[in-house]
Amino acid sequence: MSAPAETTVDGVADICAAAAAAAPGFAALPLPERAGLLRDVAAALRAAERDLVALADEETALGAERLTGELARTTHQLDLFADGVLDGRFREIIVDRNGPGPDLRRMLVPIGPVAVFAASNFPLAFSVAGGDTASALAAGCPVVVKAHPGHPRLSELCAALVAEVLPEGVLDLTHGMEAGRALVTNPDIRAAAFTGSATGGRALADLAHARPDPIPFYGELGSLNPVVVTAAAVEARGPEIADGFVASYTLGAGQFCTKPGVVLISRGHGLDDRLAEAVSLVEPRRLLGERIAAAYRDGVAALAEAPGVTPLVRPIPTSGDVAAPALFKVPARELAGPLLEECFGPVSVLAEYDSVAELVAAVERLPGSLTMTIHAEQSDTALVRTLLVMAAARAGRIVHNGWPTGVTVSPAMQHGGPWPSTTDPLHTSVGFTAIRRFLRPVVFQDVPDEFLPAPLRDTPLRDTHDRHPQTGDS
Amino acid sequence: MSAPAETTVDGVADICAAAAAAAPGFAALPLPERAGLLRDVAAALRAAERDLVALADEETALGAERLTGELARTTHQLDLFADGVLDGRFREIIVDRNGPGPDLRRMLVPIGPVAVFAASNFPLAFSVAGGDTASALAAGCPVVVKAHPGHPRLSELCAALVAEVLPEGVLDLTHGMEAGRALVTNPDIRAAAFTGSATGGRALADLAHARPDPIPFYGELGSLNPVVVTAAAVEARGPEIADGFVASYTLGAGQFCTKPGVVLISRGHGLDDRLAEAVSLVEPRRLLGERIAAAYRDGVAALAEAPGVTPLVRPIPTSGDVAAPALFKVPARELAGPLLEECFGPVSVLAEYDSVAELVAAVERLPGSLTMTIHAEQSDTALVRTLLVMAAARAGRIVHNGWPTGVTVSPAMQHGGPWPSTTDPLHTSVGFTAIRRFLRPVVFQDVPDEFLPAPLRDTPLRDTHDRHPQTGDS
Repeated sequence: MSAPAETTVDGVADICAAAAAAAPGFAALPLPERAGLLRDVAAALRAAERDLVALADEETALGAERLTGELARTTHQLDLFADGVLDGRFREIIVDRNGPGPDLRRMLVPIGPVAVFAASNFPLAFSVAGGDTASALAAGCPVVVKAHPGHPRLSELCAALVAEVLPEGVLDLTHGMEAGRALVTNPDIRAAAFTGSATGGRALADLAHARPDPIPFYGELGSLNPVVVTAAAVEARGPEIADGFVASYTLGAGQFCTKPGVVLISRGHGLDDRLAEAVSLVEPRRLLGERIAAAYRDGVAALAEAPGVTPLVRPIPTSGDVAAPALFKVPARELAGPLLEECFGPVSVLAEYDSVAELVAAVERLPGSLTMTIHAEQSDTALVRTLLVMAAARAGRIVHNGWPTGVTVSPAMQHGGPWPSTTDPLHTSVGFTAIRRFLRPVVFQDVPDEFLPAPLRDTPLRDTHDRHPQTGDS
Repeated sequence: MSAPAETTVDGVADICAAAAAAAPGFAALPLPERAGLLRDVAAALRAAERDLVALADEETALGAERLTGELARTTHQLDLFADGVLDGRFREIIVDRNGPGPDLRRMLVPIGPVAVFAASNFPLAFSVAGGDTASALAAGCPVVVKAHPGHPRLSELCAALVAEVLPEGVLDLTHGMEAGRALVTNPDIRAAAFTGSATGGRALADLAHARPDPIPFYGELGSLNPVVVTAAAVEARGPEIADGFVASYTLGAGQFCTKPGVVLISRGHGLDDRLAEAVSLVEPRRLLGERIAAAYRDGVAALAEAPGVTPLVRPIPTSGDVAAPALFKVPARELAGPLLEECFGPVSVLAEYDSVAELVAAVERLPGSLTMTIHAEQSDTALVRTLLVMAAARAGRIVHNGWPTGVTVSPAMQHGGPWPSTTDPLHTSVGFTAIRRFLRPVVFQDVPDEFLPAPLRDTPLRDTHDRHPQTGDS
């Protein structure tokens, strides 16, 4: 199996036209059928586990254990969306009737074909059949994926398995940067979702907004994921926190969107040796690719040279796609520049504060993040209240006495946050509410019962007996 | 009372900084207090009815009757948002607990200070204290308004009345185009809403998206609001439809976002005389200003010169800010160019189709609109089903056997639609769900009960007893 060829601009146009042609029919499927297709996709992926994991490991070096877990997460995610589709509340129905005004019945309908830009670091869960695709399909929208070049053959295999299950035109795959640009500017595409770097995401967002007809663009970009550790927490659980921190920032070789990139900790914590020892036990590992490893080494060098920074653990010199973990220290008041930006890979920064005032001043300078974590004790009540206020303004998920890595796929999950962690803070890319990105409201005014979509009728019909293409629901 | 001076760029920065300073405190108000403030704003406007209507009429020439009605709509709107705030469901709480994963509790929180760009055509209901402001305040966000130059002194009076009722910094006013650009690019502003022209809205949307930290921009721009009349409807109710159409497109001198700009009607309808007579009864009227009247005359001239167009009613020549109604005819197959764009003012176009196939082909070419209207009879069942599918893909509100002008302020209302009618099809600027534009989700993971916002606790406390600034709710 050789690497797939790049998709031509004409090829992208044909694929998008097919998606647009498939859109009304797919939107018209009754909800039980739509949910059934999501379950069928999950089953098809499960059945191909051995091939998928082997090919993914070959292309990403993430290891069979992690990839087997990621596949389970991916199929669980599809099943979660199937459950939510069946539930039907995602349509957000509101009915105004028997009032002085007109009879108004509102519901959400599918937005149309969606472009999904796959991520490198989750070749299954944030790729061809990942969360963006699952939420778009759940909304009733066909999907055109731009494969990540880090796992092109896995993408082909996934797309073939998924497309086999779905109606024609509902899922297709493209390859190459030019194809990506053609995709986000294609007139048949009605929204786009992206997981990846700030640079790539911003460039695509700019293209989406500069179209003659701008479309919504949902980019999940880089995230610093700050952690605050109070003096009381150090005293109560210092060694445990040190170990948990090292495990979290080096998990998956630091290649998670939720990796803790900076830890604000009280000076005099006395954990340097414990941290250094924990890091020393983490072996150098292959990153997702040589380009990512090179960027990691550059990033680590930039951190090392930032004002006020001293190394706690210098990375072992590596080459190729291999990277070794690193850990730096800096006074909290020096947090600036590269210290406030995500560095993808197994590196993090301890920022030491001398006082609560210095801690609060540092938190004020933190950029928007997917997550913010607080380690505190009962005695920190007032400080925790202050930090929660600041955290809620800066992050989409607030973790108490835990670690941000490990994003549960569940109904309440929020995986999003203020810029620069995403391009649109109103949404999430994980959890069932991710579906909202691909739905738009339509209200029917004084439309007779027999013409209304079934869920809006006075006398609702069964989904399986009556289809209403206009609403994406029966 | 002379016209207010333009706000300087420094002035805008000071006002936005004050809004940012006020944001946490305003967000922290218990919901009953927030709702009470919205009702106080409504009451303050009601108490000043005589002054507001007189000043509005002086600046806009819309007439005391219309403006008295618009003020009632404005205050009703504030009361509707107060009801929705008290209800509390807008927080979209989701709780995952007692499962295998972490305890996750999600709710929506205020996005932060909002810039509101006021409209010319509704000096009260879409201006300083209009729907965008009401929904942002309801969400818990301070508002900085950019006044429309068509009614600067009314804007000052409204802002003074509203600011008097609200906490300091929660509402302020700016004037001038440069102030508008400074506002949408100000780092303290977290979202912007706009009602106005496609050109102005697009320019501001581009600025919002080009910021170092892009922000959500909600623009309600121009809308064609197509109407389809079937042959059966003509036969059953031709004269009534003709009269209703003329009343709708000349209502408020055609200065509504929902004015029907094109009517697809079966050739041989025989309504030319009836239409011409109805239009002849509509007196020339003052538009909102000379610039708008001049743009109207230019637009009418462009329509008259479009290929295939013949005049049904030529406008009486007018000057200054006065405009006379006009009506054109064109074969449906010639619908293109200016015929598919909004022309603000009392003009519309009859597009005559020879067959259902020609009708469907014409509907396929229609741009996104706020509304689409269908006039049909029982015998049109199959055609209506087809048209509803197409309408739901092209409009936010579908009107059956009625007219699109007159936007009810109610929970189910959808006033939004695909580009170019808005810059973001996921939202509405009228109705309670407009609040969603100014809220973002935050999830609390394993946060102890005493630190959680009250609505997320196992043992909820009363709003009035406990405040949680971080969530904008107690």
